Amino acid sequence: MSNLSPVATIASLSAHEGQTITLRGWLYNLRASGKLLFPIFRDGTGTIQGIVPKAAVPEEVFETLKNLTLESSVIVTGKVRADSRAPSGFELDVEGIEVLQRVPDETPFPITLKEHGVDFLMEHRHLWLRTPRQSAILRVRATIMRAAAEYFDTNGFIRTDPPILTPNACEGTSELFEMDYFDDDKAYLTQSGQLYIEATALALGKVYSFGPTFRAEKSKTRRHLTEFWMIEPEVAFLELDGLLELAEGFISHIVTTVLAQHRADLKVIGRDVEKLEAVVAPTPAGERGPFPRLSYEEAHAMLEDAFAKGLIETRHQDGDDFGSPDETYISSQFDKPVMIHRYPAAIKAFYMQPDPLDPSKALCVDVLAPEGYGEIIGGSQRVDSYDLLKSRIEAHNLPLDAFQWYLDLRKYGSVPHSGFGMGIERAVAWICGLDHVRETIPFARTLNRIYP
Amino acid sequence: MSNLSPVATIASLSAHEGQTITLRGWLYNLRASGKLLFPIFRDGTGTIQGIVPKAAVPEEVFETLKNLTLESSVIVTGKVRADSRAPSGFELDVEGIEVLQRVPDETPFPITLKEHGVDFLMEHRHLWLRTPRQSAILRVRATIMRAAAEYFDTNGFIRTDPPILTPNACEGTSELFEMDYFDDDKAYLTQSGQLYIEATALALGKVYSFGPTFRAEKSKTRRHLTEFWMIEPEVAFLELDGLLELAEGFISHIVTTVLAQHRADLKVIGRDVEKLEAVVAPTPAGERGPFPRLSYEEAHAMLEDAFAKGLIETRHQDGDDFGSPDETYISSQFDKPVMIHRYPAAIKAFYMQPDPLDPSKALCVDVLAPEGYGEIIGGSQRVDSYDLLKSRIEAHNLPLDAFQWYLDLRKYGSVPHSGFGMGIERAVAWICGLDHVRETIPFARTLNRIYP
Repeated sequence: MSNLSPVATIASLSAHEGQTITLRGWLYNLRASGKLLFPIFRDGTGTIQGIVPKAAVPEEVFETLKNLTLESSVIVTGKVRADSRAPSGFELDVEGIEVLQRVPDETPFPITLKEHGVDFLMEHRHLWLRTPRQSAILRVRATIMRAAAEYFDTNGFIRTDPPILTPNACEGTSELFEMDYFDDDKAYLTQSGQLYIEATALALGKVYSFGPTFRAEKSKTRRHLTEFWMIEPEVAFLELDGLLELAEGFISHIVTTVLAQHRADLKVIGRDVEKLEAVVAPTPAGERGPFPRLSYEEAHAMLEDAFAKGLIETRHQDGDDFGSPDETYISSQFDKPVMIHRYPAAIKAFYMQPDPLDPSKALCVDVLAPEGYGEIIGGSQRVDSYDLLKSRIEAHNLPLDAFQWYLDLRKYGSVPHSGFGMGIERAVAWICGLDHVRETIPFARTLNRIYP
Repeated sequence: MSNLSPVATIASLSAHEGQTITLRGWLYNLRASGKLLFPIFRDGTGTIQGIVPKAAVPEEVFETLKNLTLESSVIVTGKVRADSRAPSGFELDVEGIEVLQRVPDETPFPITLKEHGVDFLMEHRHLWLRTPRQSAILRVRATIMRAAAEYFDTNGFIRTDPPILTPNACEGTSELFEMDYFDDDKAYLTQSGQLYIEATALALGKVYSFGPTFRAEKSKTRRHLTEFWMIEPEVAFLELDGLLELAEGFISHIVTTVLAQHRADLKVIGRDVEKLEAVVAPTPAGERGPFPRLSYEEAHAMLEDAFAKGLIETRHQDGDDFGSPDETYISSQFDKPVMIHRYPAAIKAFYMQPDPLDPSKALCVDVLAPEGYGEIIGGSQRVDSYDLLKSRIEAHNLPLDAFQWYLDLRKYGSVPHSGFGMGIERAVAWICGLDHVRETIPFARTLNRIYP
């Protein structure tokens, strides 16, 4: 019977109002009220509540459903009925059901509506993913990744994939995963594709990379994973001001796209969308509202002022990086992401171009997400002088021979160029309003976890 | 002077005919003919020839250009003039030039128009990328990757990223890169995201993964890299016939997109585009021309016939996999990719569903690219029975505990599901018509090479 009516997805039910359709999915929940059953089905695109009055269906259908275990796979036939009280706007008058695989009574689906500990949930991540909140997060993550790539694809960038296995580290060899390559060689898992896409930018002009990066960091914080995804643009002939423009347009496009496509998912996640709407709120003239830009000095002055007023506990030392409370205070002053530029060169990476107006500062930018989510983008203009870069590599005790190819980029037609990197998981945590990055990726890898 | 005229890219010159514009790029080549110079500039979007008559420009401009070294970075001002003899349709009447960084005379750009050995070119891959053919290949690669993701994005698939660091291998532990994780744990670099996206498919319905995969294979062939990119869809409630449809639509979309956007690049690469046009040639009725489908038995019979006629040297043994000459012969019989389905289960992976009509066969498909490029897609319907999968894992001597989560997918709402994987580098090699996969990726990783 189920195969005679058209197969529909839950997300597409509005096109089938009044029709009898077939859904293929799983029993997500079941409530019984006397001679009435209220099963909730999910199919990956959403959930819908079914109505099963005992008198309205064959006894076999009622009995099958009444005793059905959660997460059993089913093919359900029913008529789509608009119901303004339903979250999706529709309910299903169930007419028939075929059970493909019944979850055994003795081994029920381990994830229930009650609270579970984090370790239990992470141990059952392959099943936890099926719950509405986790599924919603994964859908938003997919859109964030697509929108991120789309922004570059539609602005003339060429995607170029840097290697994952590298002979040397971008910023030295601390926190690197090492492995044996062939013939007694060692290889390291990349921490950033930047150095490599500097080479492709000088070949193709505007490029980006988009892949996993790794950090063997022994820290257990809510912001750190050992394996995380980065998207990194790199642009020949681009200087710092242009880089800030690029980052602003990029983040705005991602937030705009998520708001346009994921209102329902954000609701399931419990996200306050007004905070996201503020990020892309236009100016009174209808233009893209610019993100605030602060120099490091201005940010430091803001923190000095806050400390004097007793608004932050620890005084920020001029010349130091910003701590998490500093970043939270600064970002709390604005509705939009804050772009802090021109940090002291001493606390930044060796490849950053010095500010010609004050060589003790680097031509760099960190973008802080609102609401205390911290840095989501870090970028800079790159050193374009061969001699300066060589002396920097030496001063950082990095092996010159491993960086010879990178130096070559300054020997053969060096140009001003700039780029940034955005960590996908931090962006997902911010946009979804999550406490911990472990929920932002299907299978998080942390200090203590590599299973499933 | 150069900053007063609008900055344009070489790809956009048709919009600037008759105007004076500024280009930012590099000197790709230089030819002198008496009092006339013919510099060729590149900017990542293409190349254009400049014309510099000594009498028409300030002496300083002429002298600067006349002595300029290849790959020096420049800002060039000039007037765009249509010229039907030019490959791009335009030439540039140079008016001014600013040299940003002059490549020193004593260290000229190492890659010249003469032939270089492969080792030399791979050692200088960061510079080799700048040559027109390599740049064109990278542009086509980027479009193949974008079109591949786009096909799934626009057909309701959710991108879900499987982990790169895994505790166990998809098909056993041979050819795996192993590394130390924390606390004496071992981790392995993924060979495929399949097992993980089977979990996300049962959560989200239609999913795909797109990331790097690794194989510690000690083979040096023109088809193998140790690090390569895979795109893998996985679909709940999809059976083998639907999988073949999906693969056909997917490949057709990629080839159609490349043909629509990269005619000029394919010409630079020297690709015979008629071969690609045949892949997506419609039926007389204007529909998508289907790819030929052969069962393993039919393919074997075709090879028997060819052997009998003396068309292939080695006789194919029924039950064996196809060798490279077998695949080349089969694909040479068709203009379109060939889909060979239902191989003997004994030579296929443990997770493949047996054919109910003949359990000695697996419900699987290999798609062979035309012109002898071999397998570009491998896929199958997956075992959906808990008991069968468990016995398969045991029969293959795989560790049950490591696969417990994978077995769980058959315990909690198992459904028929199918997926395939396409290796990006092999697809690029085929579509660009390349002899070796090392040119298909910015920085190829092979048995002997991990630098630059």
